[in-house]
Amino acid sequence: MSPLPPANNPPAEAVKDLMLRHDAFSQLLGLKVEEVGAGYCRLRFVVRPDMLNGFGALHGGALFAAADTAFALACNSHGRQSVGLTATVDYLEAGQLGDVLTVEAREESLRHKIGVYQVRAVNQNGVLLALFKGTAYRTSNELL
Amino acid sequence: MSPLPPANNPPAEAVKDLMLRHDAFSQLLGLKVEEVGAGYCRLRFVVRPDMLNGFGALHGGALFAAADTAFALACNSHGRQSVGLTATVDYLEAGQLGDVLTVEAREESLRHKIGVYQVRAVNQNGVLLALFKGTAYRTSNELL
Amino acid sequence: MSPLPPANNPPAEAVKDLMLRHDAFSQLLGLKVEEVGAGYCRLRFVVRPDMLNGFGALHGGALFAAADTAFALACNSHGRQSVGLTATVDYLEAGQLGDVLTVEAREESLRHKIGVYQVRAVNQNGVLLALFKGTAYRTSNELL
Amino acid sequence: MSPLPPANNPPAEAVKDLMLRHDAFSQLLGLKVEEVGAGYCRLRFVVRPDMLNGFGALHGGALFAAADTAFALACNSHGRQSVGLTATVDYLEAGQLGDVLTVEAREESLRHKIGVYQVRAVNQNGVLLALFKGTAYRTSNELL
Repeated sequence: MSPLPPANNPPAEAVKDLMLRHDAFSQLLGLKVEEVGAGYCRLRFVVRPDMLNGFGALHGGALFAAADTAFALACNSHGRQSVGLTATVDYLEAGQLGDVLTVEAREESLRHKIGVYQVRAVNQNGVLLALFKGTAYRTSNELL
Repeated sequence: MSPLPPANNPPAEAVKDLMLRHDAFSQLLGLKVEEVGAGYCRLRFVVRPDMLNGFGALHGGALFAAADTAFALACNSHGRQSVGLTATVDYLEAGQLGDVLTVEAREESLRHKIGVYQVRAVNQNGVLLALFKGTAYRTSNELL
Repeated sequence: MSPLPPANNPPAEAVKDLMLRHDAFSQLLGLKVEEVGAGYCRLRFVVRPDMLNGFGALHGGALFAAADTAFALACNSHGRQSVGLTATVDYLEAGQLGDVLTVEAREESLRHKIGVYQVRAVNQNGVLLALFKGTAYRTSNELL
Repeated sequence: MSPLPPANNPPAEAVKDLMLRHDAFSQLLGLKVEEVGAGYCRLRFVVRPDMLNGFGALHGGALFAAADTAFALACNSHGRQSVGLTATVDYLEAGQLGDVLTVEAREESLRHKIGVYQVRAVNQNGVLLALFKGTAYRTSNELL
């Protein structure tokens, strides 16, 4: 895992604008993308009442969706259209109403056709709520 | 995998009512739970414009969330409060605007403290869009 | 999941011979491949004393390795060289010394560059010991 | 992920001796455990001819098995008998005959009944070959 977030770069910024303009589900969730760099993405969101599950905690699907968006931005950041093949999530602690979650995706591996990413979701106290790992297939379509 | 969905049973129905009453995120997604039985759940939803990602296809997080709700209902159906530990999803085909998706969770294994479930999501033409597998921890809290 | 194992076919048989001739690790484990068809493989092995872990049960790595071989044969059976990208295993029951395990891989999805397979390992009493799911990347190399 | 390996401690050392004494499969693979600490394990092995697959590269099952042993030692290191529930592996680069692989397990999360671990396998040139993530159930059996 790269020790530091890579610096922003023009392709990553343009990819971010292109992808977020139409990403209705990320808008529905109120995701705020703070930074996209080469192989990197960090976003933030607040746990709202309409994101809770039947036990009153953050629905795992809402947390997964935020991680999936960070994964998508990180793997598309190189400018080649990339699609998720498979992802896994570990739920470590429950998110609560009002929590402010930071979700950060980092590239573990980038090959010609395949990229692998890890995403960590932490709350405002630095507690790790979930680990996400995603594998993407990199098509030959250029995004820009 | 059990060859047939188990028959509905009173605990499963009561658990369904209890859990869905407060499940705000599943309501936000418009999930319609059609059947809950012992270790089983089937639900349906329509892909709406606000569920699309930046490429105009169903956001992986929305599909995952529907599968996660089916998983939660199936693993809680026995009446013991259960929480997801980890889940994995494989994206096989993209969901499209207007698709009517059926999401069906079945129990693979039930032990004292752990249950394992597989969930399949198919569209209105019977095309398999995603496979989901979830592992749940069964607490000693009785739900009813 | 296909309800029945597909019939054997000449490419699958030739791929089986080609791959097993040099598969030293599968030989070390004593894996007996019983059938390979299009997107399908079934093999068998006996749990030997040198496959046990520190608690006297079948080592998870030995069971995984048998499933991985079944996965490799199933995904290469179409004649295109395929490599594993990622796999997940769920341990449901412990294997014991002397158990005769049957390991069966079936294709869930086959696209141009990606295949997804599920593998089930059962003992001589039909008890499911493990579920395995693997995702393969299909290169353009023809094996035969 | 803890930034540094935790210091060795007496329980972890005793657990290591107890578990490795009978771990026949790890012996078959020639795994050399270099360090076990609280929630931590590092081991090493050489890729031998009898660990290769049908394409002449390191069999994924052999690599997985080494990671699984590191995971088992890390999660049992606290002195409570722990069993693997599920694991996932990503294959990033192929291991080759003669490679000297270092396999390092670190604890991501430790709760009363569940622990989550990540394992990284690198070759003698520091190239990351595989990522492994495992979830363990912690029984109430004390090992010592």
